[in-house]
Amino acid sequence: MSDSIKKPSWKEKLHEIIYEADTKQGKFFDVILLIAILASILLVMLESVESFDNEYHTLLNIGEWIITIFFSIEYVLRIVSIKKPFKYIFSFYGIIDLLSTIPKYLSFILIGSHNLVALRALRLLRVFRILKLGRYVGASNKLLLALNASKAKIAVFLFFVSIVCVILGTVMYMIEGAENGFTNIPKSIYWAIVTLTTVGFGDIAPQTPLGQLIASVIMILGYSIIAIPTGIVSSEMTKTDAEIDTNTQSCPTCLKEKHTKGATFCHNCGSILN
Amino acid sequence: MSDSIKKPSWKEKLHEIIYEADTKQGKFFDVILLIAILASILLVMLESVESFDNEYHTLLNIGEWIITIFFSIEYVLRIVSIKKPFKYIFSFYGIIDLLSTIPKYLSFILIGSHNLVALRALRLLRVFRILKLGRYVGASNKLLLALNASKAKIAVFLFFVSIVCVILGTVMYMIEGAENGFTNIPKSIYWAIVTLTTVGFGDIAPQTPLGQLIASVIMILGYSIIAIPTGIVSSEMTKTDAEIDTNTQSCPTCLKEKHTKGATFCHNCGSILN
Amino acid sequence: MSDSIKKPSWKEKLHEIIYEADTKQGKFFDVILLIAILASILLVMLESVESFDNEYHTLLNIGEWIITIFFSIEYVLRIVSIKKPFKYIFSFYGIIDLLSTIPKYLSFILIGSHNLVALRALRLLRVFRILKLGRYVGASNKLLLALNASKAKIAVFLFFVSIVCVILGTVMYMIEGAENGFTNIPKSIYWAIVTLTTVGFGDIAPQTPLGQLIASVIMILGYSIIAIPTGIVSSEMTKTDAEIDTNTQSCPTCLKEKHTKGATFCHNCGSILN
Amino acid sequence: MSDSIKKPSWKEKLHEIIYEADTKQGKFFDVILLIAILASILLVMLESVESFDNEYHTLLNIGEWIITIFFSIEYVLRIVSIKKPFKYIFSFYGIIDLLSTIPKYLSFILIGSHNLVALRALRLLRVFRILKLGRYVGASNKLLLALNASKAKIAVFLFFVSIVCVILGTVMYMIEGAENGFTNIPKSIYWAIVTLTTVGFGDIAPQTPLGQLIASVIMILGYSIIAIPTGIVSSEMTKTDAEIDTNTQSCPTCLKEKHTKGATFCHNCGSILN
Repeated sequence: MSDSIKKPSWKEKLHEIIYEADTKQGKFFDVILLIAILASILLVMLESVESFDNEYHTLLNIGEWIITIFFSIEYVLRIVSIKKPFKYIFSFYGIIDLLSTIPKYLSFILIGSHNLVALRALRLLRVFRILKLGRYVGASNKLLLALNASKAKIAVFLFFVSIVCVILGTVMYMIEGAENGFTNIPKSIYWAIVTLTTVGFGDIAPQTPLGQLIASVIMILGYSIIAIPTGIVSSEMTKTDAEIDTNTQSCPTCLKEKHTKGATFCHNCGSILN
Repeated sequence: MSDSIKKPSWKEKLHEIIYEADTKQGKFFDVILLIAILASILLVMLESVESFDNEYHTLLNIGEWIITIFFSIEYVLRIVSIKKPFKYIFSFYGIIDLLSTIPKYLSFILIGSHNLVALRALRLLRVFRILKLGRYVGASNKLLLALNASKAKIAVFLFFVSIVCVILGTVMYMIEGAENGFTNIPKSIYWAIVTLTTVGFGDIAPQTPLGQLIASVIMILGYSIIAIPTGIVSSEMTKTDAEIDTNTQSCPTCLKEKHTKGATFCHNCGSILN
Repeated sequence: MSDSIKKPSWKEKLHEIIYEADTKQGKFFDVILLIAILASILLVMLESVESFDNEYHTLLNIGEWIITIFFSIEYVLRIVSIKKPFKYIFSFYGIIDLLSTIPKYLSFILIGSHNLVALRALRLLRVFRILKLGRYVGASNKLLLALNASKAKIAVFLFFVSIVCVILGTVMYMIEGAENGFTNIPKSIYWAIVTLTTVGFGDIAPQTPLGQLIASVIMILGYSIIAIPTGIVSSEMTKTDAEIDTNTQSCPTCLKEKHTKGATFCHNCGSILN
Repeated sequence: MSDSIKKPSWKEKLHEIIYEADTKQGKFFDVILLIAILASILLVMLESVESFDNEYHTLLNIGEWIITIFFSIEYVLRIVSIKKPFKYIFSFYGIIDLLSTIPKYLSFILIGSHNLVALRALRLLRVFRILKLGRYVGASNKLLLALNASKAKIAVFLFFVSIVCVILGTVMYMIEGAENGFTNIPKSIYWAIVTLTTVGFGDIAPQTPLGQLIASVIMILGYSIIAIPTGIVSSEMTKTDAEIDTNTQSCPTCLKEKHTKGATFCHNCGSILN
């Protein structure tokens, strides 16, 4: 688009600003959007603090309207500037943009409704927008690569943790019983998760010596097996780093890649590398 | 068995479906079994929630019977289709299958017995079956390999942690004493484990300045030595990954090792690899 | 300065002792300074313990005056012995030195003031001086190198953790509500951070089954994603270590790289390295 | 000693059994000793449980006497069988052996003394003996090597953690104050350690919004910097493992060691390796 010779239309210009971040205006727009999203999240938070809401209700309300209008304009511009508006409207971010914009309008209609809290929270969905802006940060891509590579192993680990929590939770339910806070199996499993993950709220704690012995086993288990996800991700990241250590050049004869740095002969066809 | 020319008997067919996962029916059977196990675990959990059990007792009872009958049929078929039934019956999974199937029948005989809770929990043993199904997941084998290789080091670590907890638990018992919740040495050791593993329930907490100082030492120790199991598993996994990526053959000309998998020429001298 | 032939003036000598650690006296001064800083920190701590302060008030006061006078003299000598005094006075450590010295003098003027606690805490700023002394420890430089290299990735991780806490905190606020301690969104986010980081104070804990289910998800998430910063730093340190052990020159004959430090001949072709 | 032709005296035989583990009897003695130590630790623990001690006092007393006599005989035999008895008596393990044996005899003399608890705990010192037996486990040596190599870095880390806790603890003392449980600076520092290490007892928890904000920062900091000791140990262990990857052969010409596995030429003198 930016390579075309004919002067871009205002729609094309708008598209470049809103959807791309290559130009100065595009970057500026993204920064403004980020500030607006953070401001809107802050507003929803402050509104939930009763004492603050009582004192500064009008101020918060004005802030909400400014941001709602800003997001409304942004939403309309996004639809206008894109060639296939419906593709945007029904995309994940399109729906989030709509849902996070309408609450204020709905609160206008449904004034006094008890669903207001749920409506307000919808505005928080804008936080996902930030995640999208995150794609500009190169480091996050490397992280995602490493996480993606270790997906299967982490799933196996989480599955194992779940089974351990089910078994140990049930055992604790039978040992401690309802009189010590382990009122049913789901709650005991919840306690086992709290303990295995080393969170330890302390709202439920074993009272019998046998229960405390098994709790000790769960804790030491949890303390030790945290090494597993850590080991998975560490080795995956070391590997990703090592791949940067292999050459990026491909053999001039057979086009094979991934030569060890400093290799003089292609490990595939034997011809001399540059 | 699948290579034999003569048509397989129904016993052989059944064996293939139940014990193997190569055929379409075998995989289907495993999926059905997995769903049945998960359903049976869910039922035991829900039964333990008193309010839920009171309301939907009949429904839960019907569900239990359906699953019990399903597992009974499975158990009989497993015995029938195998050549050496006693080897299965007295195997680990054979005993688990039996123990997790009979509780409902026993509750029929021992109606009103106070051992019902323990009986119900027996059904949860089926969860181990899932672990067996887990062998199909390749990632779990790699994990087990790495864990197996670091077994000795982790045992030494756990042993060291145990001794530290015994010593520090006793010290805390002497400093804080029964009046601050450290009523006896086993309980103090339990507290030391809770603290060292960074769980921190808070049901027992040191009150004296000296006790809090030693607690600080335990916490910082626990926070630091978690690096040990993590380091063990990380280095083991890095090693396992590296071994998979290179092959073990050495160049017949220059004896250089660690060639990339699938290399046809030595990356060092350029001569052809075997 | 130490290479100059003409006899150094007393100012130059003083500069060498106070600002450098190459000479015997310089090292001695740093050790004395370290002890004085630790003593001053200890004094501020003990003063804050009411029972201790009541009993040993005079002793603590004398101690404070001794240290204040020591730091005053040090401050004056630092200004006197440096060529550009204003550069020191307005540097980070210059300001800290001043701020941590004046509280005792101010308490002399503002006797009985209720700002005394804040004034006392100013003395604790001296702790930063220790950080400066830390530059002599080689290990801390390696650590900082590894941390610096993983800065971008850790920022992305912390950003992701923040967003997760905002979203899950809000969800918990809507599920549990004010009656279970989740009085407003900021407090719920605080709880989400307490839970995700596996701290688990237990001052706020979910009561509803759905809340406990989501809490379980947060805990397992927190337990798993701790692998990410760990993996980042581990791989970075492995890389840093590997770089230190090999030199960067390549063999002039065969172009092979990664020779062991101090190697005189290429381990690949046997020709002499530069 | 075992190579000598003349028949060994009974003292030499005894020395072999007690101090060495090469012979069958030596290993047997170590196992018996290990069991006796574990039994003595168990006895001290059970004695501290009041309800258990009341019921089985005589049994525990008999057990104590049996073990005390066993350790007394062992102590005498150790002195008798060694050539330089005083070297053993005043060694670390010699003193521990004596201190852990005498409490029962002292309780005989000081009957009814209130120092009995402290005396009993002396018996627990035997646990250190187990650590000595641990030298037979090869894995523990590898662990100690890796830990030793990362000593300096971990010291820097612990020092940094201490300073952070001192600063943040003081800040929390000023923000929250005595009315929210932060009664003095040492206690606030204790709380900062509890929080930073992700233990989170919950006996003290911030109540003010600003306090909770800073607590959040401490928790996320603690959650992130746990990556540092982990990264240190991981990279150290990976390095130790990698050293096993270098050749153990030394160059026949220049005696230089640590050749890369598969190297054909010495990296030092250029002569051909075996």
